[in-house]
Amino acid sequence: MDKFAIGIDIGGTNTVFGFIDKDGNEITGGTFRTQEYKDSEEFVKELVRQIEISRNNISKDFDLVGIGIGAPNGNFYNGTIEYAPNLKWEGVIPLVKLIKEYYDIPVYLTNDANAAAIGEMIYGGAKELKDFIMITLGTGLGSGIVVNGNLVYGHDGFAGELGHVIVKDNGRVCGCGRRGCLETYCSATGIKQTVKELLAENKYNSSLNTEGFDSLSGKDISWAAKMGDELALKAFELTGEILGKALANFVAFSSPEAIFLFGGLSLAGDLIFKPTIKNMEENLLHIYRNKVKIIPSQLNENSAAILGAAALVWNEI
Amino acid sequence: MDKFAIGIDIGGTNTVFGFIDKDGNEITGGTFRTQEYKDSEEFVKELVRQIEISRNNISKDFDLVGIGIGAPNGNFYNGTIEYAPNLKWEGVIPLVKLIKEYYDIPVYLTNDANAAAIGEMIYGGAKELKDFIMITLGTGLGSGIVVNGNLVYGHDGFAGELGHVIVKDNGRVCGCGRRGCLETYCSATGIKQTVKELLAENKYNSSLNTEGFDSLSGKDISWAAKMGDELALKAFELTGEILGKALANFVAFSSPEAIFLFGGLSLAGDLIFKPTIKNMEENLLHIYRNKVKIIPSQLNENSAAILGAAALVWNEI
Repeated sequence: MDKFAIGIDIGGTNTVFGFIDKDGNEITGGTFRTQEYKDSEEFVKELVRQIEISRNNISKDFDLVGIGIGAPNGNFYNGTIEYAPNLKWEGVIPLVKLIKEYYDIPVYLTNDANAAAIGEMIYGGAKELKDFIMITLGTGLGSGIVVNGNLVYGHDGFAGELGHVIVKDNGRVCGCGRRGCLETYCSATGIKQTVKELLAENKYNSSLNTEGFDSLSGKDISWAAKMGDELALKAFELTGEILGKALANFVAFSSPEAIFLFGGLSLAGDLIFKPTIKNMEENLLHIYRNKVKIIPSQLNENSAAILGAAALVWNEI
Repeated sequence: MDKFAIGIDIGGTNTVFGFIDKDGNEITGGTFRTQEYKDSEEFVKELVRQIEISRNNISKDFDLVGIGIGAPNGNFYNGTIEYAPNLKWEGVIPLVKLIKEYYDIPVYLTNDANAAAIGEMIYGGAKELKDFIMITLGTGLGSGIVVNGNLVYGHDGFAGELGHVIVKDNGRVCGCGRRGCLETYCSATGIKQTVKELLAENKYNSSLNTEGFDSLSGKDISWAAKMGDELALKAFELTGEILGKALANFVAFSSPEAIFLFGGLSLAGDLIFKPTIKNMEENLLHIYRNKVKIIPSQLNENSAAILGAAALVWNEI
């Protein structure tokens, strides 16, 4: 009999789920708006309703082995979502417990970047690796750290918040309330702010000058850079410089074999990889030089979140 | 029959070893000068000769279960000492292989700070902990990181070089050839340099002004601070500020339950702990606040190195 795991990605706007087999094929799935459920119990009811609709789409018999969930501030140990700033549910939500009221199978929860790391290990470019770091470059910067084949959760389940490593004293204000966090520089939001600061210097002729700043996206900046726009190129260079230096410090911690870059900014290819690799190598302690690969995630951008969530199940059972 | 492990600490000046039981009692041991052996094979010959002399001192029958070694740049995976700047042996020394020519028992090698971390886990304050970081504050700054009960070695055996995390762009020159490494600020050498810089500012009346700078030790600075010397107090405050901020970043990596401080500077007590704790807490991401203990190592300063080395054996078998 076929075996499937359900992978669920809970985002601030939408929740996406899929029935995934061990090879990473999505059999069926669905999506609905997270935002519309101010109450987490109502949300779980809708989630279960949607899952059951999808389940009925599968014509053959199958074995449902578990449910994996990636969610902001998801805590693996407690099965809770704790004080997630992007979700409407306040405080600590016992999500795994709520779901287990409907399904008597293993249910695992972690944050989205950790799920992506496990996805990379089960389905992506890290199948043969025991020590690697996953960096997700989205609106913010997330991370999942794998040491000796296991995800690093820390004593409280909250390890691996590399987006909130402080890289500049009195640097940019971060959503977390502090200053100088890595994600204020190296993320879609970060590079946009870098462009803003470069525009303010009035040193560059740039097509980005004519763009309304609020509507400027990471893709616009990539596009301008690919067209040879000097300011956009400079913005990528500065982003790669800060990211590369930060990665050099992370290497001194866990000495990974590879660092995967995933998400929006990573799709800019050489624009971000070249300065990142150059600055990491220049700042590495000699024993680590020319050993650590920085490579693009091999997970498909669109399905990575639910694949990662499903991989949580395959990784545990 | 009693079981003993041999713990060996290879330092730039001396090599110390001891026969250690599972409870951390040293039965017998010895010491000799590392420096006198320019050839590593000659060194091993002498080491074996000394071990055999000690072994003959033990009157009862016993079972020798293994040998653990802490050495600068010791590589756990390869059993090698690789390019250790403080030792006279150049290149890569296959130490475990050399010792195994004499003893057909398990032989483990790692660097001194990793050995101290394992010592803390087996014999010290980390017996109940699965996630902690050991920071050794000696001439430099070493570290051993434990995640989920296992030491983090990384893919190449060289993880955990937190003394070489760069904390200041274009900061102090480090022995590693780069600039701004944590150990150039937070170590005996680091605080001495801080005192030198503060003296140069001519802002403080200080008893340290009268001291020849070359002969100034970490203990002198502690003593002056305890006597209320303003400049010495300022030096500890600045050291704790940089260390605390660095620790806050390390917490974002592995979310440890505790961070142990070991060695010279840590013996200054509140002088170093207070500013370190204050600055770590102020710089922690909110989810980590008031959770991470910074505590003194509970290993005896004098025997810690060989206890840690012996603990490598008890940890593996």
